[in-house]
Amino acid sequence: MTALEVVRAAAGLDEYLASVEAELGRAVERRPGVVAEVGRGALDAGGKRLRPALAFLSSSPEDDPPVAAGAAVELVHMATLVHDDLIDGASVRRGRAAAWSEHGERAAKAAGDYLFARAFSVLAETGDPTAVALLADSSLALARGEAMQRRQRHDPDTTVDDYLERCALKTGALFEAACVLGGGSREYGRLLGIAFQIADDVLDCTGDTIETGKVPGTDLQDGTPTVPLLLAAQEDPVVRDALAGGPKEGVLVRVAASGALDQSRELALHYASEARSRLDGAPRRDELEALTRAVVERRS
Amino acid sequence: MTALEVVRAAAGLDEYLASVEAELGRAVERRPGVVAEVGRGALDAGGKRLRPALAFLSSSPEDDPPVAAGAAVELVHMATLVHDDLIDGASVRRGRAAAWSEHGERAAKAAGDYLFARAFSVLAETGDPTAVALLADSSLALARGEAMQRRQRHDPDTTVDDYLERCALKTGALFEAACVLGGGSREYGRLLGIAFQIADDVLDCTGDTIETGKVPGTDLQDGTPTVPLLLAAQEDPVVRDALAGGPKEGVLVRVAASGALDQSRELALHYASEARSRLDGAPRRDELEALTRAVVERRS
Repeated sequence: MTALEVVRAAAGLDEYLASVEAELGRAVERRPGVVAEVGRGALDAGGKRLRPALAFLSSSPEDDPPVAAGAAVELVHMATLVHDDLIDGASVRRGRAAAWSEHGERAAKAAGDYLFARAFSVLAETGDPTAVALLADSSLALARGEAMQRRQRHDPDTTVDDYLERCALKTGALFEAACVLGGGSREYGRLLGIAFQIADDVLDCTGDTIETGKVPGTDLQDGTPTVPLLLAAQEDPVVRDALAGGPKEGVLVRVAASGALDQSRELALHYASEARSRLDGAPRRDELEALTRAVVERRS
Repeated sequence: MTALEVVRAAAGLDEYLASVEAELGRAVERRPGVVAEVGRGALDAGGKRLRPALAFLSSSPEDDPPVAAGAAVELVHMATLVHDDLIDGASVRRGRAAAWSEHGERAAKAAGDYLFARAFSVLAETGDPTAVALLADSSLALARGEAMQRRQRHDPDTTVDDYLERCALKTGALFEAACVLGGGSREYGRLLGIAFQIADDVLDCTGDTIETGKVPGTDLQDGTPTVPLLLAAQEDPVVRDALAGGPKEGVLVRVAASGALDQSRELALHYASEARSRLDGAPRRDELEALTRAVVERRS
């Protein structure tokens, strides 16, 4: 079995994800109309439901599965994708037209806001204000990660540490929230999130379609300094220039030739291994270990 | 005393608004950085804190003042303003540069998302999941109002009923939430919100600076069919053409000449009067009555 198959075979996971899906459907369709339609589009577009799965795998088999927590983190994730499309002007995500290009900017903004609101509402229904505060804090982290990404744009002197801090904020924080809301380790979530993000950024350079469904090569095009681009830029002034805003043609081939992709994969493996070291006493340890392997092995 | 002075003189209101302000400050400054800075900008830009005042005046003097509820509705309002700036590309609001033009689109989006998250977190701390669900529902209404505004854009055949439904969603819903969270009447909030929005739309046509701080004449410029523009368009084909996207020059003068402004003020007064009729048994009835007069009498 591959690592991913181990994760997928976790007892009760399918049933849990079906419950989360039903909860997401209820959250989105509270009122018919354009907002529900955009929300439904974001929902149907799918994605791996990795964050809910993480909440589940962090919970104890003896407790009730954390359905509300799983739905809440996925709703925040979906809201972020809808809003990101708006900012990026991305016209295709996960193979579908972006919410805003079908329904207009206002509808997309509104739908994102609504998904966001619904995330907090779903979680508040569990009657746990600490959980709501935790999700709000992870939203702050996402926001800080966005702000940091903007500051780092077109800056080939971004350090690897700065890049890793950005990963921890824009990806690690919601992974953390999923783990903690499920009952698991905050540090595991953070480290897994960083590993995941590095792997994603490598996939962006190799030209495969990646989890978020964005068009490959986007980071270079946008001047977003990811670790493979930063490491390649240290070796190759043409890459450095492209990252700073210069011509992009043929640059991904140079990145691949530089060894930066392998170095980046090593870094992802390092974080995955660090994540594994935080699993003492976890009730579903085998699956969480397999997950650290699955996120860095994936090809899409 | 003017109606506004009656409202302002309500026993305990100043102290209450100071507590809300402190709560808003805490919510915004949870972490230093760009996001906090944008949030702080939105906070300092002020505004009337009308929604928190509404929560307070809806509460009973015998209960604890609803500080969390007041802060939560104001945070949602602020988040909406930050995001609206982003969509509208408005470069000036309340006399300051819009959040995004100072800090970039990503930072503005992130700050809006964060203010939004914080609203739900503040409210969840009160341990009342019904309140959080209510605020989420009013966020859905805001979103539906946005979507409706987009559909109605450049449509001079928008009916007054459609316009009123939009007002109820984009303004009434959050007024409703403020009232209900304070312990008051939902219908009063809805009707007051509609009266307020009509008055705002009249002010946009008369060229005064209005509550939200947007540049006067914006509705005509954007093709947003407000009631004064719709009524004038029924009489004057030049106004109709301008609303549908044609030339705008000299059109506001024609709107003023058409009698549509007075008819719209009448409509606002009607909704204010309807709101007053829903105050039986309200503990702070005098102030809430005065508020219905203040929102339609205002000049800015």
